Amino acid sequence: MDYYSSQITKLIEELSKLPGVGNKSAQRLAFHIINMPKEQVECLAGAITSAKANIRYCMECYTLTDQELCPICSSDKRDHKIIMVVENTRDLAAYERTGKYEGVYHVLHGAISPMLGIGPSDIRLKELMLRLQRDVQEVIIATNSSLEGETTAMYISKLVKPTGIRVSRIASGVPVGGDLEYIDEVTLLRALEGRVEL
Amino acid sequence: MDYYSSQITKLIEELSKLPGVGNKSAQRLAFHIINMPKEQVECLAGAITSAKANIRYCMECYTLTDQELCPICSSDKRDHKIIMVVENTRDLAAYERTGKYEGVYHVLHGAISPMLGIGPSDIRLKELMLRLQRDVQEVIIATNSSLEGETTAMYISKLVKPTGIRVSRIASGVPVGGDLEYIDEVTLLRALEGRVEL
Repeated sequence: MDYYSSQITKLIEELSKLPGVGNKSAQRLAFHIINMPKEQVECLAGAITSAKANIRYCMECYTLTDQELCPICSSDKRDHKIIMVVENTRDLAAYERTGKYEGVYHVLHGAISPMLGIGPSDIRLKELMLRLQRDVQEVIIATNSSLEGETTAMYISKLVKPTGIRVSRIASGVPVGGDLEYIDEVTLLRALEGRVEL
Repeated sequence: MDYYSSQITKLIEELSKLPGVGNKSAQRLAFHIINMPKEQVECLAGAITSAKANIRYCMECYTLTDQELCPICSSDKRDHKIIMVVENTRDLAAYERTGKYEGVYHVLHGAISPMLGIGPSDIRLKELMLRLQRDVQEVIIATNSSLEGETTAMYISKLVKPTGIRVSRIASGVPVGGDLEYIDEVTLLRALEGRVEL
């Protein structure tokens, strides 16, 4: 790509390493950045380096945060006896957006996947088991409804059950507002199996 | 979004200002960046600031470059008597990728658009006319085949014709490999009008 100057080529290269950014989008982003006001460019570059430099794992739930203990783990308004297990910080954020969950979280940073060679020791499972030695009433497993998520959920429930702590799994079924016609058979069967009395 | 730490929120905010990056993609990008190795993050941030700091317009053709004169304008292998007029540096790059064009370029940085309030004085047209005072044989107009691109092409051809310099427009028609069945009527009519004898 020597028809661009080396600086532009370098920027396009760096941008196209990001997930979901192909060569075309990287070019569009690069030219947009070059045309942005200087202060805004510095804000963007600054946010990137400072997020990387200051973000670490919460020592309790392992979500990404800039303090030792994340705002949720350090809040006394949350019920620390209920732990929701999620695959990553984005899933935690999704439940936080509902504004209705009052317990705390545990972020695994992945899911068990024999296909990808990710075993139980590659995710934050040991750390979860350590937390269960304290006073915990319930573990809610909110891993994704994918093969890996389900495998992880099964694995965790087998580990937790012997401790006597209640283990639950978030419900799987037809999404609210979903049109049955467009929903896959597996989900429809799950919704049927999980039916609740009215 | 106080369920993320302020550093993450700030990064997501900055990323979602980029074109084609919505809130969801900004979150995905942010977490990807946080998980990238430190050196790679610094490369990305560095490429952003240094591209912005060092990129300027070529004093001849106005493409984006890091030198006074871009590699194309300073090359003696190119035919400086043939100027292809394009809307932006990405369009220039598209023609350079063909590897067959031997003339030079002129980058307008936009197209005339009465709808968006972009007039002839808002794009690099005056600069093009100045270049035509030197020894130029042909101006090839390669603006997009959109309403704005066509308007700009017409406007330029009217300006250039009185100078006696040859003006041409890149052909409009059915794309190579295109299936007639799926091509719009306007393109089909254009292709018919522009038919060439075999």
